[in-house]
Amino acid sequence: MIELAANRYGKAAIRIVRVGRDTTPHTLRDLTVSIALEGDFTAAHTDGDNRHVVATDTMKNTAYAFAAEHLTGAIETYATSLARHFLEESQVDRAIVNVREHAWHPIDVAGQPAPDAFVRSGEGTRVTTVAVARDGMVVEAGVEDLVVVKTTRSAFTGFPRDRFTTLAETDDRLMATKLTAIWTYGSPDLDHDRVWRDARTTLLETFADHDSPSVQASVWIMAKVMLERHAEIEEVRMVLPNLHHWTVDLSTFGLANDRQVYVSTTEPHGLIEATVRRSEIG
Amino acid sequence: MIELAANRYGKAAIRIVRVGRDTTPHTLRDLTVSIALEGDFTAAHTDGDNRHVVATDTMKNTAYAFAAEHLTGAIETYATSLARHFLEESQVDRAIVNVREHAWHPIDVAGQPAPDAFVRSGEGTRVTTVAVARDGMVVEAGVEDLVVVKTTRSAFTGFPRDRFTTLAETDDRLMATKLTAIWTYGSPDLDHDRVWRDARTTLLETFADHDSPSVQASVWIMAKVMLERHAEIEEVRMVLPNLHHWTVDLSTFGLANDRQVYVSTTEPHGLIEATVRRSEIG
Amino acid sequence: MIELAANRYGKAAIRIVRVGRDTTPHTLRDLTVSIALEGDFTAAHTDGDNRHVVATDTMKNTAYAFAAEHLTGAIETYATSLARHFLEESQVDRAIVNVREHAWHPIDVAGQPAPDAFVRSGEGTRVTTVAVARDGMVVEAGVEDLVVVKTTRSAFTGFPRDRFTTLAETDDRLMATKLTAIWTYGSPDLDHDRVWRDARTTLLETFADHDSPSVQASVWIMAKVMLERHAEIEEVRMVLPNLHHWTVDLSTFGLANDRQVYVSTTEPHGLIEATVRRSEIG
Amino acid sequence: MIELAANRYGKAAIRIVRVGRDTTPHTLRDLTVSIALEGDFTAAHTDGDNRHVVATDTMKNTAYAFAAEHLTGAIETYATSLARHFLEESQVDRAIVNVREHAWHPIDVAGQPAPDAFVRSGEGTRVTTVAVARDGMVVEAGVEDLVVVKTTRSAFTGFPRDRFTTLAETDDRLMATKLTAIWTYGSPDLDHDRVWRDARTTLLETFADHDSPSVQASVWIMAKVMLERHAEIEEVRMVLPNLHHWTVDLSTFGLANDRQVYVSTTEPHGLIEATVRRSEIG
Repeated sequence: MIELAANRYGKAAIRIVRVGRDTTPHTLRDLTVSIALEGDFTAAHTDGDNRHVVATDTMKNTAYAFAAEHLTGAIETYATSLARHFLEESQVDRAIVNVREHAWHPIDVAGQPAPDAFVRSGEGTRVTTVAVARDGMVVEAGVEDLVVVKTTRSAFTGFPRDRFTTLAETDDRLMATKLTAIWTYGSPDLDHDRVWRDARTTLLETFADHDSPSVQASVWIMAKVMLERHAEIEEVRMVLPNLHHWTVDLSTFGLANDRQVYVSTTEPHGLIEATVRRSEIG
Repeated sequence: MIELAANRYGKAAIRIVRVGRDTTPHTLRDLTVSIALEGDFTAAHTDGDNRHVVATDTMKNTAYAFAAEHLTGAIETYATSLARHFLEESQVDRAIVNVREHAWHPIDVAGQPAPDAFVRSGEGTRVTTVAVARDGMVVEAGVEDLVVVKTTRSAFTGFPRDRFTTLAETDDRLMATKLTAIWTYGSPDLDHDRVWRDARTTLLETFADHDSPSVQASVWIMAKVMLERHAEIEEVRMVLPNLHHWTVDLSTFGLANDRQVYVSTTEPHGLIEATVRRSEIG
Repeated sequence: MIELAANRYGKAAIRIVRVGRDTTPHTLRDLTVSIALEGDFTAAHTDGDNRHVVATDTMKNTAYAFAAEHLTGAIETYATSLARHFLEESQVDRAIVNVREHAWHPIDVAGQPAPDAFVRSGEGTRVTTVAVARDGMVVEAGVEDLVVVKTTRSAFTGFPRDRFTTLAETDDRLMATKLTAIWTYGSPDLDHDRVWRDARTTLLETFADHDSPSVQASVWIMAKVMLERHAEIEEVRMVLPNLHHWTVDLSTFGLANDRQVYVSTTEPHGLIEATVRRSEIG
Repeated sequence: MIELAANRYGKAAIRIVRVGRDTTPHTLRDLTVSIALEGDFTAAHTDGDNRHVVATDTMKNTAYAFAAEHLTGAIETYATSLARHFLEESQVDRAIVNVREHAWHPIDVAGQPAPDAFVRSGEGTRVTTVAVARDGMVVEAGVEDLVVVKTTRSAFTGFPRDRFTTLAETDDRLMATKLTAIWTYGSPDLDHDRVWRDARTTLLETFADHDSPSVQASVWIMAKVMLERHAEIEEVRMVLPNLHHWTVDLSTFGLANDRQVYVSTTEPHGLIEATVRRSEIG
């Protein structure tokens, strides 16, 4: 016998811009939205029965309509309203809405923010994933593509050496990463914009301010401080590529290179992933 | 209390080309390899203790060395040998090796394959993920980025209509996708190249040869035939973006457009995912 | 005084798919079209006078409409019809239409081509740029993103050595490139599909079949043969990145590596560009 | 007869990071460098004679070495030193060095800049191209990938309407672009960092502060102000994709949409290019 196991479907890469015109400066919200539904879609697969298959085009339209009505605050609120809407369909067990917000800020004109012109800012993308089911909901928030560097206070020593090990120990390397940090809230009722800003600040400050014996230890240190400072957060998942910067050997050219000139690489890269959470028996 | 939950680390995007020179034509293998280790790495995170942290640079070197010694057959065999090697470390519970193979074929010169010149072919990327643990192993194989189109015999009708539904029903649309299909083998002992080729052929032939009432039904139909024809396969996971092609309204210009001219889009796109498997009570 | 110098405008990245349904198998044409106009657009710039500014949206509509009517043969013919259309506007001095065609072929089902299902093929993109002016036209054709490798018969020796030179001479390296070759026809009246196919075959065969003392010499050799074999071609412009593949030093691990295992890189890469043409005094 | 026409070669995508450690905070310079040489390389092409072909690997090494010695100020200075170095080879007629600088700034920790940690900033990429020949040099500077939006004060009306025109006139659209602006200096002797910063400020302020009757007019207005304010600049070349944002029709859903909700698109896009310069007879 052959059976359908896990399945979901939805619409991805819905690009929405919303302009708020009743303030000075205007507000500019720029989102990429993805919607996925899970539930009893067996007949759709095995019998081609579409009677309960909400068209993904309808999902797109709904995302636009809800942007008009519900995108006045945090993306977590918008995502929650969309997810709850789709759960109204009886065959849906879980609706998952992912929103990525691209940051803009008003152009500075002679020291004042322009009322109606914006420049895209690149310091990471704010993200949320809201999953609503019959028995509860989970709200994740976080940041992706936050590209950061430590120019010192990063080491990697004491690792095992085998036949295939050629890496030298170093007590002062450059550490570069494109950081993803996703955290889960214990309750969805909170001031999302404020908590997100504070959590991101903690993340960046801790990244800047710690001594790193390894990327793994850095992940632990950052996540631990986030959990200690922000009671709203239950767990933090981090993904850190280690974007190696190799010191260029300039001695051949009669030049010193005491941690000044590096070649920046992306392939291959280390990839460190970990989840840190409040212990249940804590 | 704060604790470390799931974690893994490794090296990603290791680019390896291996040339076999003892045949005519030469063989050209072109791989992107990723290695990840799971196990007891708590001390590495919480204490900065690297005594059991195999450097990801060592993983890279090992991947190169094993390419020389073990990359003479299928990528599944190479990935297995690498994964088993890393499981020799006592702190490792599971070693996961992902290999993507980029296809090349000899350039045709006056009807004959060139002995030593190749052109990159683009019909999807062959992939495998081998996960080896103390108590067993799982071998996945499949294809990514297989871009295919059905120019007819694809419909989407009978779906529910609500306030936000504007999509018209259609009994003849163009269906385009960039297909990912990953299947799991019941046993790792098989002729990987032959089975992979046959499974890919089944996938493509079934895609070409079925009538599609929806992408969900297409996924079911393709996966079902794969399971029926290939006893080695236990389950198939598929991810299909629905890359919409909209018929252009040319009537304004006094022109007919009976399913001839389409605008090809990628944003937004539908996204359909499902796993189909042999039932345990089958 | 401040003045407007060179300027052009148009529409880029127009994505069009055209299905021909009156043959078996169907035909599937997949184009990315860009249109640019040059001429007297001074008032549009300096006075905001749009009276002669054909909207780029109109260009897009025209590209769709002409796909219905004129895309039954070669992309060069389609591009020419579009360019001539826009030259009908009096303020336009030159209309430039660039078309890139993405290759598909019918899926093979039990040895026969499927009538209505296609797989995207990756062996380079066919391109044309047609520029039509009052006093004549220029038709360029060619191929982009043709990824090819020579596993032997490529050398690089005898180059100058200075203080900054560390590269070893090699009489047997792997040569990999993503080739762009654009050629110009002496007259637009020719069988475009046949000549293009033949020219591409010459390019690939010559790439496969020559001994390369440098990428520069390879460019010359390939272009020269193309001009010798194809009287329709007046000049050939080539752009070849040299995508370095470095032999991995496995001796540390007690392994030989006689041009077997390479690390494939893209950053940095060599970049060789040259135009080869029939001499006017030839 | 067949002859070699225009040709150049070099190294592209050289990735260099330079850390200055003698200040607090450290300085972090992050460059992508490309080098190209033009000159008499006929023998290299036609005879495979490499005696005057500086290896592109040597160019890379030189870029690293010069980063240690000469990358203490503006990228224009570094690029000039590199270009002059390569012109010392007698067969070189022109050396062209392109440098793109990726912006970072110190992470803010409790209101203070971190001494040794940085976050990548995304507001465009600073670029320079320095071309040095026997008889002089040209220095271009500018910005690429500056993504900006005007939420109002952008119109497009009065354009011609033909059979293929469907676009409505609008006196209030959203204008979004990823701006490239490259300007040429009359003399290379200037305070590059200051002039570049000021020119970029002018560009952004003028973008924010003008009423746009078309993208063409916007290009003229911005370039004109740059030339008026900055005597060092001789000409400005701009490339502006028009990244269309279409107002979503929400009336079907019983919702108003008075320029609030837009769908953001990238394909197809308008593409407007123009050069504005001081008139020679000015």
